[in-house]
Amino acid sequence: MGLGHDLQSVAELEAAKGLLEPDVFFTPAELARISRAPSPLESLAAGFCAKEALFKALPLIDGWFWTDAELLHDARHAPRFQFHGLLAEHLTREGWQVAVSLSHSGGFVSAVVVVTTAPRS
Amino acid sequence: MGLGHDLQSVAELEAAKGLLEPDVFFTPAELARISRAPSPLESLAAGFCAKEALFKALPLIDGWFWTDAELLHDARHAPRFQFHGLLAEHLTREGWQVAVSLSHSGGFVSAVVVVTTAPRS
Amino acid sequence: MGLGHDLQSVAELEAAKGLLEPDVFFTPAELARISRAPSPLESLAAGFCAKEALFKALPLIDGWFWTDAELLHDARHAPRFQFHGLLAEHLTREGWQVAVSLSHSGGFVSAVVVVTTAPRS
Repeated sequence: MGLGHDLQSVAELEAAKGLLEPDVFFTPAELARISRAPSPLESLAAGFCAKEALFKALPLIDGWFWTDAELLHDARHAPRFQFHGLLAEHLTREGWQVAVSLSHSGGFVSAVVVVTTAPRS
Repeated sequence: MGLGHDLQSVAELEAAKGLLEPDVFFTPAELARISRAPSPLESLAAGFCAKEALFKALPLIDGWFWTDAELLHDARHAPRFQFHGLLAEHLTREGWQVAVSLSHSGGFVSAVVVVTTAPRS
Repeated sequence: MGLGHDLQSVAELEAAKGLLEPDVFFTPAELARISRAPSPLESLAAGFCAKEALFKALPLIDGWFWTDAELLHDARHAPRFQFHGLLAEHLTREGWQVAVSLSHSGGFVSAVVVVTTAPRS
């Protein structure tokens, strides 16, 4: 099982210029959604935080990009990853399932990611 | 597997009047315990946070109430949920087990909930 | 499955003198690594936080010491526990695996620990 957790102060992330190149981290669809959010900076930080938690939950896998893990929200506003490219292939091949949960409050964003093996049928 | 995480600034939750109707969220026994806690506001926030994390960890289930998930503490002060009503029936029918962990510090409360399937014997 | 989560304000932990006796919590190797860290106080808090999360994730086990759970970092800087003494024996006997993830930002440290049973071969 893989486990990843990330906590980020939004102000600290902004001061550290951690979000200077958002297109390294986010797909055009993610950036469009973030720009329409009530607080774009906080949404950018939340997306960054979720991807950091995913990175920590996975073993070293060569050749994937941050944009291969696209963060979507379902009808209940719950976040989930849609995977692309090499990362999608790797996860399918290994039979790994990824759960993500995300929260923000008081100027912080926080994420937990758990990677489990799907039961083989 | 279901995963839920919630982080709450206690001051922000208070300002947002998120706790105005505590009897929607808490059973009489929970409210009695909270009122005896060293910091009732923080305990109220912690209970709210744990239930938010549970909500995120579960799929959409119709007809349950926040008071169906009662937060208790065991002899080691570890939190655990005791379930009632439709939610209890649903969890038993599906064979789901719920683990919760809770922390508070520096004016924040934070919770993680994981829902797993019990191994069938 | 065992689940533990801990969030700590570094300033609050320092004010509460929670770190006054670090050799109760940390091995000499951990203390040497902490003293070389860019921010020793934050590293001390992170180690404390990870061990608190571990404590919450485990059932009551008699006779282990905080120094039986030594926090190391692998080549990717990912934290993992190396266990010693009675705790190591207990985990091996039960076939339990421990995953830990750790984060710090904005004066807080936060950790999640999950204990699972390794699949029997």
